[in-house]
Amino acid sequence: MSNAITQLFGIEHPVIQGGMVWCSGWKLASAVSNAGGLGLLGSGSMRPDMLKEQIQKCKQATTKPFGVNVPLLFPYAEAHIQTIIDEKVPVVFTSAGNPALYTSKLKSHGIKVVHVIANTKFALKAIEAGVDALVAEGFEAGGHNGKEETTTICLVPEIRKLTNLPLLAAGGIASGSAMLAAMALGADGVQIGSAFAVCEESSAHLLFKEKVITCNEGATALTLKDITPVRLIKNEFYEQIHAAIAAGATKETQLEILGKGRARMGMLEGNLTEGELEIGQVASQLKAIKPVSVFMKELIQEYQLALQRIQQQLV
Amino acid sequence: MSNAITQLFGIEHPVIQGGMVWCSGWKLASAVSNAGGLGLLGSGSMRPDMLKEQIQKCKQATTKPFGVNVPLLFPYAEAHIQTIIDEKVPVVFTSAGNPALYTSKLKSHGIKVVHVIANTKFALKAIEAGVDALVAEGFEAGGHNGKEETTTICLVPEIRKLTNLPLLAAGGIASGSAMLAAMALGADGVQIGSAFAVCEESSAHLLFKEKVITCNEGATALTLKDITPVRLIKNEFYEQIHAAIAAGATKETQLEILGKGRARMGMLEGNLTEGELEIGQVASQLKAIKPVSVFMKELIQEYQLALQRIQQQLV
Repeated sequence: MSNAITQLFGIEHPVIQGGMVWCSGWKLASAVSNAGGLGLLGSGSMRPDMLKEQIQKCKQATTKPFGVNVPLLFPYAEAHIQTIIDEKVPVVFTSAGNPALYTSKLKSHGIKVVHVIANTKFALKAIEAGVDALVAEGFEAGGHNGKEETTTICLVPEIRKLTNLPLLAAGGIASGSAMLAAMALGADGVQIGSAFAVCEESSAHLLFKEKVITCNEGATALTLKDITPVRLIKNEFYEQIHAAIAAGATKETQLEILGKGRARMGMLEGNLTEGELEIGQVASQLKAIKPVSVFMKELIQEYQLALQRIQQQLV
Repeated sequence: MSNAITQLFGIEHPVIQGGMVWCSGWKLASAVSNAGGLGLLGSGSMRPDMLKEQIQKCKQATTKPFGVNVPLLFPYAEAHIQTIIDEKVPVVFTSAGNPALYTSKLKSHGIKVVHVIANTKFALKAIEAGVDALVAEGFEAGGHNGKEETTTICLVPEIRKLTNLPLLAAGGIASGSAMLAAMALGADGVQIGSAFAVCEESSAHLLFKEKVITCNEGATALTLKDITPVRLIKNEFYEQIHAAIAAGATKETQLEILGKGRARMGMLEGNLTEGELEIGQVASQLKAIKPVSVFMKELIQEYQLALQRIQQQLV
């Protein structure tokens, strides 16, 4: 099968593994690429030398295309962009920042550029900047998120209306039926985060993965909306920040409570009470820690079954 | 075509018009039923004598099945249930309250009972109460909503996993492609609110409808989360309540600002600044005030087109 996304990246299935802090190093990214999707290194938790090393290890682990996610507001963004160019990585996903910053430069080196957006305003900026594709990420997604709180089912059709560019849907997708729903909404493929964060190859702490797979519906929330909205598990750290916000805490007080390194503490070091445990609403559908190859095989099989079922739904 | 929802209600298309305060009187409900869907009277903004009159007018305007939505926490809920039994209305959708209250009584009179839920906890309660079907309503829906903020793409698969009962998806659905997405997620049909609220036959004020169809993405928000979460347009009233909440206002202060009759003021009387303008995120996709017959025809045509397109998406 071939569509706008598989052709753009030269991959087998239109499934991208989101670049996630503390989860997506070379082991995860290469496993996804080897399974026929597109793996992304999450550079938002890497120093420049670490990214170079991760790219080189990823090249050794797969002959297939992979990419790097770069959060543009990250202090090392500029250094990371140079590393990516030097290392001839074929694909970059940019997020959290101005898409006009590096798109032309990357494209002049033959690198495909995709920008992650959570609203129409940034979609228009990214299109103007000349990106090759967009990710429309809904409110239900884990980690950093948009202030408009537009959900996947509402956002994807809005962005599809704006542009004919290849379009990926993200947020709430961890099964073949949700992938089919995303395609029905007008996406050409999906970016999946949470389900890959709990795969065996993810570099997140085992305690974090075990916590995620016990989440029930309602276990996550979007918080820190005055700073950068982030979706995480409602643990003790969340309750502390939530109570402060409800009592009218200023932005400064919130930043003080947040401190430094909360995501590292939670996701890499496995501190389940004091750490920031970033994950999507779809966590409640994840029930096991699997190898990437197993998850990908199940995903594609479920998608084909869902497609067969839907073909009988003439109304 | 025939599926679990069309068979349950004896209707042509698995499309239910949500019962909405100040919008869905007999004109809207009968128009939807006449167009092959299931129209619902929204009894949450009616006194008992008004509901009786509306039911009788609806019977005169259509020979097809229609129903009544009853918010169970509404002061007139018990009186409404008796009116519905007396008038032999074939279908009741209950919401906002305990499904165990009237389900058995209604069913003993041969009335089909459907309960609207926004989380798994209430889905389980409704199943235990013996309802005939469920509506799974996501965070993106207009009006009153769940505290968990679970979105349609995440909620529908969760509820589908719990039960084989006929299942309707609600929240974010105003097009054939979103309807197909809902079916892909495991729903047997859809409940549509916002798109019907702006139809010609809706009893909402013209100024409210005109406001809705100029909404862009990001125009609505969920607020009053400490009282009853409600999604509405971010107008002056919203900004006032939002500022108070951000400053740490107590529940009592919020209730004082809210006062009485805000939804009536906004939606029925057309006071766009001081009134509560309840509508879903999907408002940004609504661009015209149409007759129900036109909207329904377009919806079904779009669905069939989306179904044809998706059949080529073998991955």
